[in-house]
Order: sequence, then C-alpha cells, then structure tokens
Amino acid sequence: MNTQVQQGFDVGAHVAKLASAARSASHALARSSTDQRNQALLTAANSIESDTVAIKKANQIDLQLSRGKNLDDAMLDRLELTDSRIALMVEALRQTAELPDPVGEISGIVQRPSGIRVGRMRVPLGVIGIIYESRPNVTADAGGLCLKSGNAVVLRGGSEAFNSNRAIVACLQSGIESVGLSSDVVQYIDTTDRSAIDEMVVLEKLIDVIVPRGGKGLIERIASHSKIPVIKHLHGVCHVYVDDTADMEKAIPIVINAKTNRYGVCNAIETLLVAESVSDDVLSRVVPMLIEKGVELRGCETSRRMFPEMLAAKESDWYEEYLAPILSVRVVSGLDQAIEHIRKYGSEHTDSIVTESINRAQRFLREVDSSSVMVNASTRFADGFEYGLGAEIGISTNKLHARGPVGLEGLTMQKFVVYGDGTIRE
Amino acid sequence: MNTQVQQGFDVGAHVAKLASAARSASHALARSSTDQRNQALLTAANSIESDTVAIKKANQIDLQLSRGKNLDDAMLDRLELTDSRIALMVEALRQTAELPDPVGEISGIVQRPSGIRVGRMRVPLGVIGIIYESRPNVTADAGGLCLKSGNAVVLRGGSEAFNSNRAIVACLQSGIESVGLSSDVVQYIDTTDRSAIDEMVVLEKLIDVIVPRGGKGLIERIASHSKIPVIKHLHGVCHVYVDDTADMEKAIPIVINAKTNRYGVCNAIETLLVAESVSDDVLSRVVPMLIEKGVELRGCETSRRMFPEMLAAKESDWYEEYLAPILSVRVVSGLDQAIEHIRKYGSEHTDSIVTESINRAQRFLREVDSSSVMVNASTRFADGFEYGLGAEIGISTNKLHARGPVGLEGLTMQKFVVYGDGTIRE
Repeated sequence: MNTQVQQGFDVGAHVAKLASAARSASHALARSSTDQRNQALLTAANSIESDTVAIKKANQIDLQLSRGKNLDDAMLDRLELTDSRIALMVEALRQTAELPDPVGEISGIVQRPSGIRVGRMRVPLGVIGIIYESRPNVTADAGGLCLKSGNAVVLRGGSEAFNSNRAIVACLQSGIESVGLSSDVVQYIDTTDRSAIDEMVVLEKLIDVIVPRGGKGLIERIASHSKIPVIKHLHGVCHVYVDDTADMEKAIPIVINAKTNRYGVCNAIETLLVAESVSDDVLSRVVPMLIEKGVELRGCETSRRMFPEMLAAKESDWYEEYLAPILSVRVVSGLDQAIEHIRKYGSEHTDSIVTESINRAQRFLREVDSSSVMVNASTRFADGFEYGLGAEIGISTNKLHARGPVGLEGLTMQKFVVYGDGTIRE
Repeated sequence: MNTQVQQGFDVGAHVAKLASAARSASHALARSSTDQRNQALLTAANSIESDTVAIKKANQIDLQLSRGKNLDDAMLDRLELTDSRIALMVEALRQTAELPDPVGEISGIVQRPSGIRVGRMRVPLGVIGIIYESRPNVTADAGGLCLKSGNAVVLRGGSEAFNSNRAIVACLQSGIESVGLSSDVVQYIDTTDRSAIDEMVVLEKLIDVIVPRGGKGLIERIASHSKIPVIKHLHGVCHVYVDDTADMEKAIPIVINAKTNRYGVCNAIETLLVAESVSDDVLSRVVPMLIEKGVELRGCETSRRMFPEMLAAKESDWYEEYLAPILSVRVVSGLDQAIEHIRKYGSEHTDSIVTESINRAQRFLREVDSSSVMVNASTRFADGFEYGLGAEIGISTNKLHARGPVGLEGLTMQKFVVYGDGTIRE
C-alpha cells in the first residue's frame, strides 16, 4: 500500500504502529539461534535471486515515475537495478550469513571476593532504524546485517525507490518466515510522505539506534531532529600530513592514492599538509602527477609561490569536503601546526601521517582525535572490509559506542551477567 | 565570583566560555602521562586534607544560607561536610590515583591482506559534563575520575553547595597546576542560575558526554533537553524472580537481602515475582521476615489470598521505584510471565532469577533486557566496585556505549589506528 495519496492519513501513528510491531517481534528474534538467522538470510538471498524478474519490473515502475519527475541522471543511475546489481545483493546476503555471529558471546568473567562471578554478554540492540536514499540495494544489505545481529529493523527508503524496496523487503520477510519467525521483524515504512522520517526519529522507546545512509543533507536533518542515538558521520574532510621525516618513496604514492583512487568517497583526502622543509621536494613530485590526473589544486600562499598554477585556497576551502578531483594544499611549519590544522578544519573521520619517526607517529596517533588515525598508509583503507570487520553498516565519527567503520558488533551491546550461588551482599 | 545577583548577565555565553576553555585545555591533558595525572590527583588529595578547615568554613556558609531557605533535613544532611566526609573524599582521590590508567592501551592489532596492521587505541572522550545536586563530595569523586581518564571536566553542582564546591575545585585545580597542566581542565560553573543546566546540555561541540548525579527529576530534565549523549538511568525498578526450580536456601536470603540490605538505593528490588507452584513455600517464609523488618507489602490477588494482611497492589505499583521499605509481590505462572512482567514494568536496571535449572537461567540471562542480569545473586551487587571496575561514575541503562555500572572505561573511547609502510589501496 502506497499511502502517499490518502487524505487525513496520520503518518505519525502509522510509523509508530510499524515500529511497535518491530519491537514486539524483536524479542523472539533476539533469542533465535545462529542457524535460524543464517538460514533466513540464505532463503532471502534465494528469494531475491528467483524473483529477479519481478524485482526488475518493480524497479522499472520506479524509474518511469522518477523520469516523469525529472530526477537527474546520477540519481536515476543509483536507482536502477540491473541483473548484476541484483546478483551483488544476493551475494552480500550469502556472505552475511557466513560471518561469525556477534551475539551470545560472554567475555571477561571474573570471580569477585564477594563470591559472585561477573562477565559481559553480547546481545542485540533491539530495533534498528535505517534511513536511506535512492539505492535499493541498501534494503537488502543493511536489512541483512540487522537480521544477522539479531535486531529487528525499520527501513525507510527513498520515495523514488518505493516499489523496488517493497519487492526486496518481501524477499527478506519470506526468508524470516521460512525459519518460523515473525515477518514483523522487518518493517518497511510504506508511505512516501517525507515527514515519516521526522516521525520515526522521535520514537525513542521503540527504536534503539538510527543508521542513516545517504547524503549530508539527509544526515544533518536526521541528526538535528533525532531523539534516538544516530550512528553517523557528517563529513569526510580527511588529511594526509607529510612530515619532514617522511620517506618520499612512501609519501608520494600515499598522497596520490588517497586523493585519486576514487573521488566521490568519504575516505579520500580533501587537503594535503606538507612540512615546510620537505615541501619543495614533495610538491614538485606530486603536483605534476595530480594535474596530469585532472585534479584541481587550491594552494596556500607558500605553495602557490612554488606553483603559481594553483588556484588560491580560500579559508572556506579547508573545511570543504569536495568529493571531487579537487585538492587543497597547505605548507605547515611542522607536526604541531599540522595537528592544529586538522583539529580546526577536519571532521574527525580519517587522517594519516607519513613519517619515519616513531615519536612523531606516536604523537599523531594519540593527539589527532579522528575515528581512524594512520601512519604511512592511505586514508582509503578506512573501511569495514579493509579493517577485517566482515561488513560495514556505516562509518561513525561519534565518540560514544562506535567510532570509525562500524560492523556487526556496532549493532550489539554488552550487558553485565552475574552468577551467584545464593550470594548476598553484606 | 557568585554571579547569581548580576543583572543582564548572559548565562549561555558564560557557560559556553567555560566549556570552550575546558575543550582547549583538554588536548594537553589527553597527552599527559599516567604519572602526571596520578600526581595531580595525589596533590589535590593533600590539598583537600590540608584545607579541611577552610572547606568546612565554606560549607558552613552554604549550610547557613540553606537553613535560611528552609531546605529539608535530608538535604541539609547531604550538604554537610564533616571531618570524616572530607577524609573520605581525600581517600577516594588517593584510590583513584592507584587505579590502572584506562588510556593509551592499543588492542586487537591484526595484520590485513592489504599489508596494513589495524588495531584500536583507547583515548579520553575529551570533555565530560557532570551535573549534580547537593552532595559536595561529587565534586572531588567525579572530578577525580574525569582527570584520571584524561578528560577535562565541566562541573555544575547544586546552588546550595556553591561555596563548598568552589573550595574543593580550587584544590583539584592546584593539583592540576602542580604537574604543569592548565587548571582550565577543571571548570566549575560559577553561577547559581538554574538555566545554566539547560545552556550546558546543548553545547554538543564543546562537551562530549553528560553524567548526571542526582534525583529522577534532575535526570529527566537533562535527558529531555540534552543534545549531548547522557550516561544515565532514570529508574531502578529491580526484580527478583523465584522460579519453581529454585533452591529455597538460596531464594530466601536473596529476597531479603535484595529488599532490606538498604532501602534508598537503585539496586534494591521493588517487586518480588514468585512462580505459582512455590509461592506458598516462598511467601510463608519471606512475608513474616519482611514484616518483622517493617517492610510494607503490596500484593497481587493471588498472594493476598494467602496473606490477607498485604495491601492490594495497584497497577501503578508495578511501575513504582519506592526507594523505601515497601515491596510489591506478584505470583506468576512461571518464567514466561516473569519475563513478560519485567519487560513491561521494569526499568532495564537489574533483575535476578533464583533457579537451579541451567536452561531457565540461560533464558533469563538472554531474554531479560536489563543492564545487569543475575542468577542466584542479590540485585544489590549491581555496583562498579562490586563488579571490580575499581570506581563508578554512574549506572547506565543506555543501550549504546555503556550499559550497567560505568567505571573509568566508560569515560574513554576506542579509535582505530592503522600502520602501513607506504601502503596504498588498489
């Protein structure tokens, strides 16, 4: 049911009803076995595979409606489900089934003088809210990770992907039902009314955490309205700092890779910082390479004295997440000024130092307050798969709960378990 | 400066200025050595010890002003600083100095196929906001834990303890200065204007987490206004459930201890749940013992048929945190109904099952969604010291970051550290 057109429809009550059903169904899911949840994921994957034609048909309706609304080409591309994109969703669900179960582990049990034994048990959070934009694959990918970690999920996809998302949700639900669990653990908000997001993020008694997947505008809107904790990063203003102790054989490839490996990603660098004493050497090597790759350079005064072909960086450039072949360049006096620059202009996402000095490396790692800090490595490694987390639901620059790439563990929590033997407190 | 009386004073700007100074000073604190921070704590302890007379004098002013405002006796008692209470503050700071440093540990380093090594480094959160009521010892206790964990702290104590708190803060600051760090890392909000709390909890760029210490009213007010994550529990509606598989030799002492060991604490039980088939046995033993200790009993219909001397429990009783010698009693059909009751009426604080069945124990531990779940132990053990955390800044029923008693680790976070050797991403 697309409730977009109904008059007098209470969006808030509708969203609360779906979230409440997810909460009720979450208890049985939380006590399901690892096998049950894996089997549900595999059945959902098979279902998507065998429903490929129907999913593509639903997607065609979305594409047609979106063309009528003059959506831009990039958006239409993100919306489109091809055979290979559907195959990737299927594969992702099968891989999720193979990951180790994050739930149930009891760790750190200690015997206390009072006689109790105390440890921590890892359990699902409960209900996860996923809010995303036009890519329908997020329905399967993020929904699958929630199920794997024993969490019910309330999905709120972009209105332009409505029919595609509904078709994929039906496959997830059939997987869930095949193992005897209630399909209520996967809820899709079936109204295209945009206020549904605002209604969703105030349900702090029904939803435990919100994971937004989409552009900065969406995330800012959610973060400012939400009464529920949000696992998020707003910007990815990442830096490489080339220290005066750097080995140039490491520095040059890292700078080039961190900027040009991919442009539209949050872990690409937006600003290059270079220590003054090596700036001649570094810039005379990387500037021609970057220009050859079509990267626009915006430099500080010092760097422009060496390379007048650079544009002049404005103050606002240092704050900018270009997500494009543009790089701002600043010559700094040394490590202190580099740290100060990153503290002021950075976004606490990912920053890397190139240095041969263990002391400088240690200071950078400790003092740069970013979710990932690196030594002699490209910022492009900031990624759940590269870190070996097995999956990634998002990257967080939050300070509490999860910081950096967030895998399945970020969808769980640890509670205390205490074993006594009739033990009482004196 | 007590700014209470100034006209046209901008509380918001003042609070932001203090928090901003704490943020700026926090960076140097975060990179201070373990020795430096411990030495600062020991010097602060000595300073409180040698300033005992002056602190008591400041406290006398607070007591006098409060008596003029007709504060009740309980509040005056909490406010009063005696020699022994001051000695306890000194001792707590010395013990905090002796705890292991939670900061700097790098754990879980793995080598990835790409060539990078990835691990996590434990670092301070940055700036902690402590909001508390009339007990001046929180200034030293909570302030000390923040410093120990490398965090700057913004303290906002009750207006009635203004002079006492200022005197203690001066001692903390002198400890900090004695090791060459800026005393700006300990800020005390020196206005008694109550709106200072509302102004403080919206400074999400300057303060990383709020820890409230006080009554339900204070915590609810903070939780509803805060844009900063709050480490908190609102209620402590704790339960003991005596299963039909229970050993009575364990059940009876646990019930009595969990209710009567102390009444005014959050980890005392408010409701006793008993499986029907053993209810006769359990209640005929515990009811006389509880009545003898002066506990008022409020029972469900079934339990009142056995013990008509119980008052009738109203629906609202099951939600109630009495913090008093009152206990509500309900006979349930078995484990399922007990779990359902706790889910509906509990506060996710601490709940305990008494059972000899490993299967029942396992189900209770897994399915009861509380921050501490226990088997055959008194709920009174839910406490950072009893758990071996070395200290307790509070108890959390949050699902993210920290759940249950929160020690020094809860004032830190883990960020990712990546080591390469000129490593780039293909």
